[in-house]
Amino acid sequence: MKLLEQKIREEGRVYSDDILKVDSFLNHQLDVDFLDALGEEFHRLYKDCEVNKLLTIEPNAIGVAALTAHRFHCPLVFAKKKPISKPSSNSYTARVHSHTHSTHNVTVSHRYLAKGDRVLIIDDVLANGSALAALLELCEQAGATVVGAGIVIEKTYRKGGQALRDRGVRIESLARIKAMSPEKGVSFAD
Amino acid sequence: MKLLEQKIREEGRVYSDDILKVDSFLNHQLDVDFLDALGEEFHRLYKDCEVNKLLTIEPNAIGVAALTAHRFHCPLVFAKKKPISKPSSNSYTARVHSHTHSTHNVTVSHRYLAKGDRVLIIDDVLANGSALAALLELCEQAGATVVGAGIVIEKTYRKGGQALRDRGVRIESLARIKAMSPEKGVSFAD
Repeated sequence: MKLLEQKIREEGRVYSDDILKVDSFLNHQLDVDFLDALGEEFHRLYKDCEVNKLLTIEPNAIGVAALTAHRFHCPLVFAKKKPISKPSSNSYTARVHSHTHSTHNVTVSHRYLAKGDRVLIIDDVLANGSALAALLELCEQAGATVVGAGIVIEKTYRKGGQALRDRGVRIESLARIKAMSPEKGVSFAD
Repeated sequence: MKLLEQKIREEGRVYSDDILKVDSFLNHQLDVDFLDALGEEFHRLYKDCEVNKLLTIEPNAIGVAALTAHRFHCPLVFAKKKPISKPSSNSYTARVHSHTHSTHNVTVSHRYLAKGDRVLIIDDVLANGSALAALLELCEQAGATVVGAGIVIEKTYRKGGQALRDRGVRIESLARIKAMSPEKGVSFAD
């Protein structure tokens, strides 16, 4: 999506080959009119998939996911981050092995994910794929069908996206970064 | 707002005089079309206040705040929760003394709150007022003007709202609960 690539070039700050700050519009300050345009694009991509529910993880992608859910006129569920030590009998639970944060669980109440649901997963960044894999696992536990994932920024030089596509998951990423560095900035995949 | 009172009566679960679960539409699963109607009401109340930025706290109110910000066509900033032990020289920081969670800091980057901003604060619940007071403090540190706060649910039998109104803060709460219990359910203030 050219509009997003341009926004990343203009406002993104690259601190290393792994750290891209996009907190002027996506992660801390939310440019809601811009995020609504991303939601429109996710809707265009998935509008024929009979989606009845959207799923994301707190907190970073809730804004873009809420605006996307509004395009679908479907409820949005956000999975909650919990310490590993706190399992619950009322929730689906999966583990996230983050390379930037400590390992933690994500949970969704049994009330809000069920067999028969057709779920579109929304997340802000896809790198090693651990968070997305955990959301897929929650849906699997619930017996829900995942129609696919809508990702704002994918780092294609990490292997998470490819590994999940190899498992048959449809993933649509609006910007695909193939390399980045503080010196050269961001290069996008074609 | 009658529509919200009805929703709370129908879907809210009262566990004690302090705990009301509204996670079917506000805190875990988000009924985005309903939250958009709340955003429309916040916009009606504050549309003449020259708001240029909205502010909330992660994670629970990000959804309703994003849909409200979309009504204003203004950016939304969400304050981040941090442990007390991690101050930063790049952020405004204030302390939240929660009675349900441990004491923590909330922070906003210097980049995203500034003198000259006219801020509308959005939060999901107002009880003892500690979170709202912390957001007001962040704005004060930045030299920003707070035009007011938009609250989804206020517990008027807690003293936070009145104490902040006594300091001159405009607070508009869409549902005002004067009492609740598992036996009698929720009673709203007139």
